[in-house]
Amino acid sequence: MKVILVGAGPGDEELITLKGLKAIQNADVIVYDDLVGKGLLKYAKESAELIYVGKRKGKHSHKQEEINKILVEKAKEGKIVVRLKGGDPFVFGRGGEEILELKKHDIPYEVIPGITSAIAVPEVAGIPVTHRKVATSFTVVTGHEAEDKEHQQVKLSELNADTIIILMGITNLEKHVKELLKNPKRNENTPVAIITDGTTEKQKVVKGTLGNIVEKAKEHDIKPPGVIVVGEVVNVLDKF
Amino acid sequence: MKVILVGAGPGDEELITLKGLKAIQNADVIVYDDLVGKGLLKYAKESAELIYVGKRKGKHSHKQEEINKILVEKAKEGKIVVRLKGGDPFVFGRGGEEILELKKHDIPYEVIPGITSAIAVPEVAGIPVTHRKVATSFTVVTGHEAEDKEHQQVKLSELNADTIIILMGITNLEKHVKELLKNPKRNENTPVAIITDGTTEKQKVVKGTLGNIVEKAKEHDIKPPGVIVVGEVVNVLDKF
Repeated sequence: MKVILVGAGPGDEELITLKGLKAIQNADVIVYDDLVGKGLLKYAKESAELIYVGKRKGKHSHKQEEINKILVEKAKEGKIVVRLKGGDPFVFGRGGEEILELKKHDIPYEVIPGITSAIAVPEVAGIPVTHRKVATSFTVVTGHEAEDKEHQQVKLSELNADTIIILMGITNLEKHVKELLKNPKRNENTPVAIITDGTTEKQKVVKGTLGNIVEKAKEHDIKPPGVIVVGEVVNVLDKF
Repeated sequence: MKVILVGAGPGDEELITLKGLKAIQNADVIVYDDLVGKGLLKYAKESAELIYVGKRKGKHSHKQEEINKILVEKAKEGKIVVRLKGGDPFVFGRGGEEILELKKHDIPYEVIPGITSAIAVPEVAGIPVTHRKVATSFTVVTGHEAEDKEHQQVKLSELNADTIIILMGITNLEKHVKELLKNPKRNENTPVAIITDGTTEKQKVVKGTLGNIVEKAKEHDIKPPGVIVVGEVVNVLDKF
């Protein structure tokens, strides 16, 4: 009886860790959702039960409570359950909530980190989130407002790190740009990149500035999900 | 002729990616430094040349210029060179500088992301850098001041994200704590964790608050390198 939360990485299936791969190979049950490269499931045992908990056609995603219930039930059957999540389980992956549920039921668990799209998607597109003399801090933030308002989200205007990375921010891009511009560290010329399908063959990179990125995103028909990077690092490797 | 920058991950050797592992297996030359689990080198071809560029006994680390020179020279010999770096090449890994040098010499390159200790070290120690209703943003910052002053580093007091992760911050812990306390979002009761040898069997976790962490770090004889995490996430999974 055990649940292992495994980060599947940012898209490219070879960016799973060796440890994560071994967990998949050894699992009796794999509970996975949309952002997981389907190809990873081919490593599962033939007898493994594969449970999809992502978006249902025309319906909302499975509720977190439903997913928690599946994890607890399958573990209580004595199974080794892998909860496979896109990116990293603890970067907006709701892994913490699943662990609290497992602890409530005294179910042993383990967490295997994954490569987060927040860093790797810019990286593979040629953008380092830090760079000597240019950026010695970076902030990762969700552009998706939580449904509940118990937690007061930090405004983008208040974020002062050299590099700002926004996940789930494309839908409200225009609003985010306005907030970012309220910070005196940034202006209409501050570089921005939007990357969709990052680390995969379908990768698309649109670069611009806070002044023109909204227009450019429209021109290039950018659709979520994607990663937004703001700061001088966007163009730092474009020399030569 | 090619140089592949590979992130070796945070310490646990099984946290290398499948793609990174394949690059190591295929390399003619591996240029590595201190933060790389030595065990990873066992995957190298028998004929591979292994070049250590970390700290030399009683001397400083190799200068970046020396490392750049080795990468260029070996690549120009027609070799497949893997530049193996602890964590991720672009999270304070100076990968960007190496790429600029490679571009200057028209040497083809690739970057394979690694698991960064900034996220994975807290994660494996039971601390999620984000958690619904508690933290929807996190900042990663270096506690090590760059020798050159061309880049004005953002002060810790100015960082407003819910979670602050400081790498290379143990040596100046007391100074960092004072800076962190200048931000009205934080006070003497704000939780802090320091983790050394994270993701390995020697992992050590000391938890406290901004009010007492300096004393606690002394008590527990905490030595660099390590990861400092500041914010409510530190204790969020301690329920039950």
